[in-house]
Amino acid sequence: MKYSIAAITLLATAPALALEAIPDRVPTPMDNPISSAKVELGKQLYFDPRLSIDGTVSCNSCHNVMASGTDSRPTSVGINGQRGGRNAPTVWNAALLTTQFWDGRAATLEDQAKGPPLNPIEMGMPSEQAVVDRLESIPGYKAQFEAIFGKVSYDNMAKAIATYERTLITVNSPFDRHMKGDKTAMSKKAIKGMQRFNDIGCSGCHSGTNFAGPALATGEGFFQKFPLHDNPLIARYDLTKDKGRYEVTKERADINTWRVPSLRNIATTAPYFHNGAVKSLDEAVRVMAASQLDKQLSDDEIGEIVAFLEALTGEFPAQTMPRLPGISGSSLVGSIK
Amino acid sequence: MKYSIAAITLLATAPALALEAIPDRVPTPMDNPISSAKVELGKQLYFDPRLSIDGTVSCNSCHNVMASGTDSRPTSVGINGQRGGRNAPTVWNAALLTTQFWDGRAATLEDQAKGPPLNPIEMGMPSEQAVVDRLESIPGYKAQFEAIFGKVSYDNMAKAIATYERTLITVNSPFDRHMKGDKTAMSKKAIKGMQRFNDIGCSGCHSGTNFAGPALATGEGFFQKFPLHDNPLIARYDLTKDKGRYEVTKERADINTWRVPSLRNIATTAPYFHNGAVKSLDEAVRVMAASQLDKQLSDDEIGEIVAFLEALTGEFPAQTMPRLPGISGSSLVGSIK
Repeated sequence: MKYSIAAITLLATAPALALEAIPDRVPTPMDNPISSAKVELGKQLYFDPRLSIDGTVSCNSCHNVMASGTDSRPTSVGINGQRGGRNAPTVWNAALLTTQFWDGRAATLEDQAKGPPLNPIEMGMPSEQAVVDRLESIPGYKAQFEAIFGKVSYDNMAKAIATYERTLITVNSPFDRHMKGDKTAMSKKAIKGMQRFNDIGCSGCHSGTNFAGPALATGEGFFQKFPLHDNPLIARYDLTKDKGRYEVTKERADINTWRVPSLRNIATTAPYFHNGAVKSLDEAVRVMAASQLDKQLSDDEIGEIVAFLEALTGEFPAQTMPRLPGISGSSLVGSIK
Repeated sequence: MKYSIAAITLLATAPALALEAIPDRVPTPMDNPISSAKVELGKQLYFDPRLSIDGTVSCNSCHNVMASGTDSRPTSVGINGQRGGRNAPTVWNAALLTTQFWDGRAATLEDQAKGPPLNPIEMGMPSEQAVVDRLESIPGYKAQFEAIFGKVSYDNMAKAIATYERTLITVNSPFDRHMKGDKTAMSKKAIKGMQRFNDIGCSGCHSGTNFAGPALATGEGFFQKFPLHDNPLIARYDLTKDKGRYEVTKERADINTWRVPSLRNIATTAPYFHNGAVKSLDEAVRVMAASQLDKQLSDDEIGEIVAFLEALTGEFPAQTMPRLPGISGSSLVGSIK
């Protein structure tokens, strides 16, 4: 597990400092600078179901930009009605995470974007080359890739998608406005909830600008064991069946550990947890308090914390729809029956 | 078959008059006036996969607004990977049609919008009430319906979707600019193709502002038998298996008759015909000439007509993405597993 113990200790002694407003700028890799042409290409690719073998599933199918960046279901549906094993994390603010996927198995948005197209139960393309061949068969894509990158490649596809995703930042939540000095932005109940969130220890892990842990370098993940304390809710929601990061590292210490997820817009991304087993935010807070802090919260306490979490819902900037390039006069993908 | 013989005769004697630029205004029913709030609600509904039983299929899944209003495949894929029987018609300019569906079984966009949610192989909702219940469970929808219509109802859902669809008009195609006096808008080849299109008789049916027949009242369809003349391409593309409008009326005269489809943006909506069996526009023109006009066209003649048809591709106006309303802190649709 790669995270800084020193940072956690600091947070524990100065909890008010653990929470930060959302940044105006997003970290961008040196080898993939943002350009408007790349954002536009990435947006087209993100919304294009032709990245899946049968033309039914796009990135947006599970990480729906118009629906808070996720799909409102416990686990997602890929090609041929197949079910994935984990809840789809929101794409909004994913650019602020230092590792991607629930188990942190991708360091960057670029690495993440290369996963689903080849996953047999998600988009089901047989190989990187098959994706490249399909993109090259669509003149509008070929021309854009050549202008931006020099050529179509699987890595360049991922770079374009990641670049688009870096534009998906929600700003101006009541919490952010509060932190910038607008003392009317959050309700009194939400402010009480924020204090409680700090005091009981939630912010020990859900700290930093993205409520997903301390600032780490890209590729360094902030992981925690979940659940940590035994309680009846664990069995009720079957929270230990999936071994989490252990499936990546095969290290015993990683059994049931997970990347600490962001809490931004959490009120809009139900259902909750890696298996999507919990439908309401109230219940999710109850589960977390019992399982991570060994605390049984009252309904009033939970209500205050939920009011705070609702204040983490930001503004989703308006976007224009992309126009997906076609092939004049021919079926766009001949192989899609 | 309801259409005006007089109108066809007129077209045959004055072919140049059969073609018209796209109108600036769209016909709108008296009982469903356009408002910006209704357009916005309709757009949300159009893009919302929660109108399908398992939350995987939206109107946009098959009639993809970003991809010329269709899905680039012979026949569409509904819930559980089920295949529909006919090629998805484009939603762009559907507002200009006087009947909807390939067989004209719906008179209006409103009537059309009520079909797919309840179709067991498309969106699979069990009843109108089930759709209403789901919409009422989403506070953001309930509030919009109440403000616009007074209440949530299946008919009001259809009215909102139809209103959004009335905004989906492509303007300023090279042909439209040509008709408005810009004599540089179309290539010489396209102009030759336009003349040939008229002279050989294509415009006998593909006339009017939408290239879908003469101006008729809403609900009156312009139907034609297809194929009309025997030729080897009919068997090759299995064009007579689907009995078309006969399946609606059960009248023998309607066997293999179809609503004359629009040709606007036809170069971007492959594959072609009711069964989507023909992949290229060249081949589609060859099939039509042989089957409807009993003519074998040369490759050059086909090339000219295709150049004209490509000049029917309009501008797809930029649109902002809708934001789909959620339920704060709870799974948006509890029943979607």
